[in-house]
Amino acid sequence: MTEVRAAYYTGNRRIELRPANVAPPAPGMVQVQVAFTGICGTDLHIVHGAMDGRVAPPAILGHEMAGRVTAIGEGVDGWRPGDPVTVMPLVWCGECAACRIGATHICQRLSFLGIDASGSLQPYWTVPAETLVSLPSDLSLRTAALAEPTAVAVHDVRRAELSAGQRAVVIGGGPIGLLVGVVAKEKGADVLLVEPNDGRRSLAEATGLATLDPHAREVAAEVVEWTDGDGAEVAFEVSGAVPGIQAAIDALGPHGRVVVVAIHTTPPPVDLFRIFWRELTLVGARVYERRDFEEAVRLLAAGQIPVDALVTDVLPLPKTAEAFTALDAGHAMKILIDCAG
Amino acid sequence: MTEVRAAYYTGNRRIELRPANVAPPAPGMVQVQVAFTGICGTDLHIVHGAMDGRVAPPAILGHEMAGRVTAIGEGVDGWRPGDPVTVMPLVWCGECAACRIGATHICQRLSFLGIDASGSLQPYWTVPAETLVSLPSDLSLRTAALAEPTAVAVHDVRRAELSAGQRAVVIGGGPIGLLVGVVAKEKGADVLLVEPNDGRRSLAEATGLATLDPHAREVAAEVVEWTDGDGAEVAFEVSGAVPGIQAAIDALGPHGRVVVVAIHTTPPPVDLFRIFWRELTLVGARVYERRDFEEAVRLLAAGQIPVDALVTDVLPLPKTAEAFTALDAGHAMKILIDCAG
Repeated sequence: MTEVRAAYYTGNRRIELRPANVAPPAPGMVQVQVAFTGICGTDLHIVHGAMDGRVAPPAILGHEMAGRVTAIGEGVDGWRPGDPVTVMPLVWCGECAACRIGATHICQRLSFLGIDASGSLQPYWTVPAETLVSLPSDLSLRTAALAEPTAVAVHDVRRAELSAGQRAVVIGGGPIGLLVGVVAKEKGADVLLVEPNDGRRSLAEATGLATLDPHAREVAAEVVEWTDGDGAEVAFEVSGAVPGIQAAIDALGPHGRVVVVAIHTTPPPVDLFRIFWRELTLVGARVYERRDFEEAVRLLAAGQIPVDALVTDVLPLPKTAEAFTALDAGHAMKILIDCAG
Repeated sequence: MTEVRAAYYTGNRRIELRPANVAPPAPGMVQVQVAFTGICGTDLHIVHGAMDGRVAPPAILGHEMAGRVTAIGEGVDGWRPGDPVTVMPLVWCGECAACRIGATHICQRLSFLGIDASGSLQPYWTVPAETLVSLPSDLSLRTAALAEPTAVAVHDVRRAELSAGQRAVVIGGGPIGLLVGVVAKEKGADVLLVEPNDGRRSLAEATGLATLDPHAREVAAEVVEWTDGDGAEVAFEVSGAVPGIQAAIDALGPHGRVVVVAIHTTPPPVDLFRIFWRELTLVGARVYERRDFEEAVRLLAAGQIPVDALVTDVLPLPKTAEAFTALDAGHAMKILIDCAG
């Protein structure tokens, strides 16, 4: 057993480096040497204590990563040491109402690695073999660390049933909103990203997306003009703000479709009359399926994801706490942690 | 020109019989002798003054009917005097964003006959030939007068994408809720109708639907039990009440579908977190398409619609005001007006 150091959430908004054991993988498990781990908005929520009911400190966070297989447990086939991989961090029960209809990604007893079990903010991460997703050998692990958030965006766009030539409004320009915009555009949509933060808007524009500042302009009126009076076919609510869902609904033309990506902890007022009148559809989109993860890897390998615009910094594992502080201050989009031990 | 008497909404909650002219139909129009007209919840709203911005008194209401063709305007083919017909009371522009995607029933400049133009609470009603829907000769006109509300229910069930063996919860047991339950059951669904009014529940039970009193039992818990822990596949929000939409959302299992049928004039709080978490779909359903009307006629002709349970009274045209009073008092489900001149 080797001793290394991992970044732990230790409660009270603290991240600390503490020793972690590296044991040989149990049957069915695979040990991965983590190259990079991205910090996600959910990780921030956890460190703010908002999920203390679910995450018991000390806990190793991290679920956006890429690395290489280092050891393989008994009964695992198909992987060899050195294989580049990412992890789809979902473990489902296979028996609940969701699993029985094939919606294993929203399993009612879902274990999310990095939240409900140890995550990848450590040099070696041991995970169930079924969670591994193969990476092309010529894809850099730094780029591949964006597979998980890209898979979220791919899933959101799949739930939108978007087709080429349609117009999509994205409400919220954080990392997921930006990725949704990029993936929707890659599918042939015209995209308008609505985001009040100047820096985030500039970043989105640098990736080729049209943007709108909702504090400077009236979103509904601008969308009407942008769509020649029709309204958009699709809107993504990625802001989590109460005005966000109304803006998404107001943006849509007849038979338009809103995808609810963001978490709204309190039920906001929703204009059901407009949903009725225009026969709109509103769908929830949560995490991803394996086909989304695989498409995310393909998009990353094809250079379709603006990794350099998204990744504002790469810090070594001992500086994980600093990464959280920078993200809290709103100074960064995506920070990767270099997890080399 | 013949003079007859029609039931007019004259403002101030009044319905009065006043003279109406019967002119020969203009080109493209067809004159129909109205046999029966059903009174709808929307007619009540109009008479309460809630739609005075849209309906200018004096106005002849009525849009649920059946009758026989009596005269045919120039340029109209395919109809002969004596043909039994009902009317799909929608006239669309053909040019707006909705019409351009084929959703003519939600045309953005829709004219709804009986609301935006004269209705069928009169002995003779002249309508555009395109609005006519043929009736089988052996279907009674009294039964056929339910084609319009049945078409609403057929459309709602179509929007639910319901399949046989699924479980559907209907929130609200008025005429439309009852019809939605009956049509869903005819499609092979197990139906549970949630309705606080004892009389309406008894009526639904008499038609073979299972019911639940939401004041006596906790709806979400009962639905969980009814579905062996799964949650329902479909819910219809037909109540228009704020707790109705929450009950509909709470009733659903993973990937469940809520159809918003009722009008919510104020945006109620909607549990977007649950929509996200269970990846639910919420769709609006408004009026009907021609295929819905035609299916409604087929269901009525096949004896699938419990007309006797629904139609609590038939009154002659001069008693139209009494019909509105009885409906206001909650003493009736559906009242038909015998419009014979």
